Amino acid sequence: MMAGLYLCRMNTPKSFRRLVPDGDTHEREVCATCGFVDYQNPRIVVGSVVRHGGKVLLCRRAIEPRRGFWTVPAGYLELNETPEDGARREAREEALAQLKLGELLAIYSVPHLSQVQLIYRAELLDPGAGAALFGVGEESLEVQLFDWDELPTDDIAFPTVHWMLGHEREVMARGYTGPFANPA
Amino acid sequence: MMAGLYLCRMNTPKSFRRLVPDGDTHEREVCATCGFVDYQNPRIVVGSVVRHGGKVLLCRRAIEPRRGFWTVPAGYLELNETPEDGARREAREEALAQLKLGELLAIYSVPHLSQVQLIYRAELLDPGAGAALFGVGEESLEVQLFDWDELPTDDIAFPTVHWMLGHEREVMARGYTGPFANPA
Repeated sequence: MMAGLYLCRMNTPKSFRRLVPDGDTHEREVCATCGFVDYQNPRIVVGSVVRHGGKVLLCRRAIEPRRGFWTVPAGYLELNETPEDGARREAREEALAQLKLGELLAIYSVPHLSQVQLIYRAELLDPGAGAALFGVGEESLEVQLFDWDELPTDDIAFPTVHWMLGHEREVMARGYTGPFANPA
Repeated sequence: MMAGLYLCRMNTPKSFRRLVPDGDTHEREVCATCGFVDYQNPRIVVGSVVRHGGKVLLCRRAIEPRRGFWTVPAGYLELNETPEDGARREAREEALAQLKLGELLAIYSVPHLSQVQLIYRAELLDPGAGAALFGVGEESLEVQLFDWDELPTDDIAFPTVHWMLGHEREVMARGYTGPFANPA
């Protein structure tokens, strides 16, 4: 939030105030001069649990928060992007991997971070011509396929990554019956 | 987007430029003086298809876009809010209604509007003590229960409202088997 640091549309600096606009129910940063409302809303995280040859692909984060810890390819959905395209883009960026997306594995709500996460099941696509199946993207320190019984459980970056790995196990064991939500 | 109309953290006006920050893959508005990145991301719409006594609750919009057209109670998810709480809040605001939320009916992606919509099944809760089951909220001109064969089909506000009413009919006919996505 950059409240108080804007110029408004009439070029008068620092005219933002926190108030409930007419007809609204929440406080917003509103420019007292021009009426512009600076809405702030939760963000959508898109990502995937990527399988290959009975293993699962994880990336060790090169960036904060949780640099050095393991996660799945995931990140913020971009403007004008579908969640499926966003999940594929994140795997390209973080693991230099092409995905075949499957079902929506889970929808997690993380209200204290103002996030909703849409997590897909996926498999690695073979790019052919002897090219590598995956690599280390700019936001990753390492990218690796893990056996399901050798996951880096103590070095997982975020609680939702534990959730989605557990939910993927459930699907592998019992079949897919619709997306999971936050565990109880 | 208010690019070019901000003061940056060093109070230098109009220093935003559109560029790809280091390590990023998308153009952003970046302050050339302080490095602040003004990320813009898609928004989450939460809403519900509300049933009562074999009918469905619709609201006639009092605000643009599509003032005067019919929709379900729905709106933007707020910071630190779960999608379920957001769907209930929208029904309170637009239809003065208390909901019992059911399954997640559908997840729609509307990339040209940079929206992801999370739509729930719901029933009206009786507030008891002779109080009205619903009313007309500030953003509504009318709120009404419609028979399923007397929907105001020609006066529906948005394509996704047609989709969700159709998907609710499918669930009523065949049972719930997981959330729907955009129709093909």
